[in-house]
Amino acid sequence: MNKNTYYSEEVHGPYQVFDLGDFVLEKGDTIRGCKLAYKTVGELNVAKDNVILVPTWYSGTHQIIEQVYVGKGRALDPEKYFIIIINQIGNGLSSSPHEAMFPQQGGNFPEVQISDDVRAQHQLLTEEFSIEQIALVMGGSMGAQQTYEWAIRYPDMVKRAAPIAGTAKVTTHNFLFTQLMIDSITSDPAWHNGWYGASTDVHLGLSRLAKLFAMMGWSHQFFKQERWLALGFSSMSDFITGFMVGYFGLMDPNNLLSMARKWQRGDVSHNRDGDLSEVLAQIKAKTYVLAIEGDLMFPPDDCETEHLLIPDSEYRVIQTTDGHFALFGTDSNYLNQVDKYLNELLSS
Amino acid sequence: MNKNTYYSEEVHGPYQVFDLGDFVLEKGDTIRGCKLAYKTVGELNVAKDNVILVPTWYSGTHQIIEQVYVGKGRALDPEKYFIIIINQIGNGLSSSPHEAMFPQQGGNFPEVQISDDVRAQHQLLTEEFSIEQIALVMGGSMGAQQTYEWAIRYPDMVKRAAPIAGTAKVTTHNFLFTQLMIDSITSDPAWHNGWYGASTDVHLGLSRLAKLFAMMGWSHQFFKQERWLALGFSSMSDFITGFMVGYFGLMDPNNLLSMARKWQRGDVSHNRDGDLSEVLAQIKAKTYVLAIEGDLMFPPDDCETEHLLIPDSEYRVIQTTDGHFALFGTDSNYLNQVDKYLNELLSS
Repeated sequence: MNKNTYYSEEVHGPYQVFDLGDFVLEKGDTIRGCKLAYKTVGELNVAKDNVILVPTWYSGTHQIIEQVYVGKGRALDPEKYFIIIINQIGNGLSSSPHEAMFPQQGGNFPEVQISDDVRAQHQLLTEEFSIEQIALVMGGSMGAQQTYEWAIRYPDMVKRAAPIAGTAKVTTHNFLFTQLMIDSITSDPAWHNGWYGASTDVHLGLSRLAKLFAMMGWSHQFFKQERWLALGFSSMSDFITGFMVGYFGLMDPNNLLSMARKWQRGDVSHNRDGDLSEVLAQIKAKTYVLAIEGDLMFPPDDCETEHLLIPDSEYRVIQTTDGHFALFGTDSNYLNQVDKYLNELLSS
Repeated sequence: MNKNTYYSEEVHGPYQVFDLGDFVLEKGDTIRGCKLAYKTVGELNVAKDNVILVPTWYSGTHQIIEQVYVGKGRALDPEKYFIIIINQIGNGLSSSPHEAMFPQQGGNFPEVQISDDVRAQHQLLTEEFSIEQIALVMGGSMGAQQTYEWAIRYPDMVKRAAPIAGTAKVTTHNFLFTQLMIDSITSDPAWHNGWYGASTDVHLGLSRLAKLFAMMGWSHQFFKQERWLALGFSSMSDFITGFMVGYFGLMDPNNLLSMARKWQRGDVSHNRDGDLSEVLAQIKAKTYVLAIEGDLMFPPDDCETEHLLIPDSEYRVIQTTDGHFALFGTDSNYLNQVDKYLNELLSS
């Protein structure tokens, strides 16, 4: 077990833990002592019909979701809703390579699928809270992958769904991006097939990952407008080091690989009868497919293609300078539009 | 000197060589025995006013330029024009790290700038052919960088200019892309700071470069439409290996790095009085700034920004599914539009 103080309540704020015991994964392996770290905000009402579920994106935790999306007067208003933010497996707070028990730690951590997360989250909601319906599942990027899986796996439970800047099935272009993500770490000799000492031994690989995400996560307009100045950085170089390497450089390489491989295999039509169009047609939730202008990883056109396959779906493109990483809340215009569309959806 | 049979007339077809002797570079180093490999098509007329100059893009040679852009009935018609295609320094046919004489070979090859290429090309045109005016300079990507430098350095010589899918000054986003290009090779331990044995020793780095270019060189639409099927490949994976690795995998890593660093520093306002707007304002050539729809490396918006700074300039966006690598001639619609716009420009 690698000690990594980044994955702690000191850094990410308090959370609760749901113990799944031995959790059998879709591909047949078992995570021994599997745990989901989650945070709830607001109160579950008596009818248990005010639940909003938010799964996390790649490398994100409950903390940034709460800070950016939850608040009084916001669409995710804790005075109205019981908001459950669940950390995905592999993100460092839920069960992850860096903290798994021998002999499943590090390079031995089993391969996890989006569907595994969703099944585990379903156990948490039903066993811990006896929740039978969800007013809204929403999530960005890998959170959108989980949102789609929720809407398809539990169609009678999910009343509304808002996948943001993500797809139900990974596109070939996005698959290639995740391969470059994986390569950026595994090409570092210090990675040693997952058997490094400290996570920072792999700093060159982590820095390459940070640069790759900088290029694809922010939009062309973000660079053109030198948005790093508004974010408090003096140059692109200062931004790459101070923000991007500052973000990824503290994380555990095996954790990042576990999530990247999960992302890369994301496909709701996998292991189901029918192709993508037939599977998306099964969604019963009122759905808002939200895309982000200038998103190089999940371009609006790819989101719209899936929207057209969902029976009760609306499609909105959020205008912003920041591209995919507008998800981080760097642009207040983005947040205003997200709230507007989520409010529309929640009042429907 | 590394032997690399890829860089040969057997592979790239016949070419001529212009000997510059000891060529002093902008940064002060000297390439000893500097040579430019070039090919001419058509005949120089008596007035010497039918010259079209085409510098090469990153990793390209005279061969693909001739095959894709030159032909009877095309805009670059050898029955009307004397077409000179000049291989850029570092591309493996002109002076390059892989074949330089001791002690300048490999990792010791001096740093070359876009302006060095253009000064060397100017010597070739004036000393070998006594050319005093150029009807058209055109080039794609790094060829566009050289085209801009030509129009600014020799404003009275260049009558028309057509930079395609490239910029006069590298953008911050593009700078980051070139850094990832560089990192993809230099992160391979087999690169050994440039002192590898055979170029194929660095095959992991070259494969990463190939994947990076696949992601950024083709457009989202190219992937969405699975254009590799039309190009004779059975899947994306088959295309990445068969086409992209097949292309870069034979090249010399130090050559690729030399060109990448030249690209990264491309900036016509460097070492000149004034900022980019003042320098572009000096262009006297009738200019057609041609951008390519869906180009992730040089998005049309970046090209248009520079177009607006050039006194006598027209701006056209070429419609294609293929993005930046439409330059390769994979889409006949692209070629028809290029010819149309070049014909407009040549008849002006």
